Amino acid sequence: MSERGRFISLEGGEGVGKSTQVKALADALRQRGLDVLVTREPGGSEGAERIRELLLTGSQERWGARAEALLFAAARADHVEKAIEPALKSGKWVISDRFVDSSLAYQGGAGGLGIEAVRAINAFGIDENFPDCTLILTLEEGGERARARDLNGSDRIGGRSDDYHRKVEAAFHIIAAEDPDRVKLVDASGAADAVTLRILEAIKELLQ
Amino acid sequence: MSERGRFISLEGGEGVGKSTQVKALADALRQRGLDVLVTREPGGSEGAERIRELLLTGSQERWGARAEALLFAAARADHVEKAIEPALKSGKWVISDRFVDSSLAYQGGAGGLGIEAVRAINAFGIDENFPDCTLILTLEEGGERARARDLNGSDRIGGRSDDYHRKVEAAFHIIAAEDPDRVKLVDASGAADAVTLRILEAIKELLQ
Repeated sequence: MSERGRFISLEGGEGVGKSTQVKALADALRQRGLDVLVTREPGGSEGAERIRELLLTGSQERWGARAEALLFAAARADHVEKAIEPALKSGKWVISDRFVDSSLAYQGGAGGLGIEAVRAINAFGIDENFPDCTLILTLEEGGERARARDLNGSDRIGGRSDDYHRKVEAAFHIIAAEDPDRVKLVDASGAADAVTLRILEAIKELLQ
Repeated sequence: MSERGRFISLEGGEGVGKSTQVKALADALRQRGLDVLVTREPGGSEGAERIRELLLTGSQERWGARAEALLFAAARADHVEKAIEPALKSGKWVISDRFVDSSLAYQGGAGGLGIEAVRAINAFGIDENFPDCTLILTLEEGGERARARDLNGSDRIGGRSDDYHRKVEAAFHIIAAEDPDRVKLVDASGAADAVTLRILEAIKELLQ
């Protein structure tokens, strides 16, 4: 039996450079001789992709907030059972581009369902298998908005208002404050290489 | 604005005469001049039917127990939001053939996830909108099994073992004991008309 791998999730608002850092972190871990699985949400397993299709089809009003949050939690339960847990058991390190904290921030914090209520249904779904470490990439106030405007050529991201995105950022800060052992905020400003070094510093205890 | 209607769910193991009693109760309420919506789970709304299809397709191992329970809870959230709540608000009485207590008994009690854990995710999904009254149709020990054998011509119901169905029955009794204001056990033995009278007696406070 291999030693169980470690599970790291990367979180943050849109336009914060998350996908770039997921790749850079995977490269850095592989250079240390680790076997790495990169995955992402929503999706990441066959069943989760099927649920994702269900969430994306139909009109905006197709699903109420509670049904939507439960569907995300069901997809995550499948993602954990069918992809993440088998990889960890085989000794792989798993990096997920978004995981449970995206639901806490988007549906719980910004969507108005409450962080605690959304945490509870997700804790049930993943059977308390939270990541070993969660890194939330953050930009100084204004920085994220400015970068997002550059990316999207408008003052909206993904069709949501600035107010919505401020709520998401506030929720991510609350989540980090409530669970400091698992969740670390990482400054995502500056050159990508510098951000990667900050991420490796944040997970140094896992790497020992 | 009409006065808000009342919400009644009928529960019980297979072969206990539930569908017959749902029809009989709807007829009895309509004879009293009430406007009645009869619905059933799993399903009962367009979104819930789509989730039901997802649950029924693929192999038996397609969904883990936790993903399955969350999918049932998501379908129920949609059923409440899109069908049950609008009917209640318009003054209709709603009778549902199975509702939240089926998940508590089947996934929670017999499936091993725990009644309390499954109650929590469902309470979130339905936003605490439990039925005004839930009637669990029960048969004396041995009676349900005997009737089920008559119906199915075998000692198994729906491919599940007797042990599984004993766990379902035990869970229904626990649910009734834990929530006596909402949940009533109704003896389902004897002639259908006699059972209907027992049901009307059990909901007499709602009818006043």
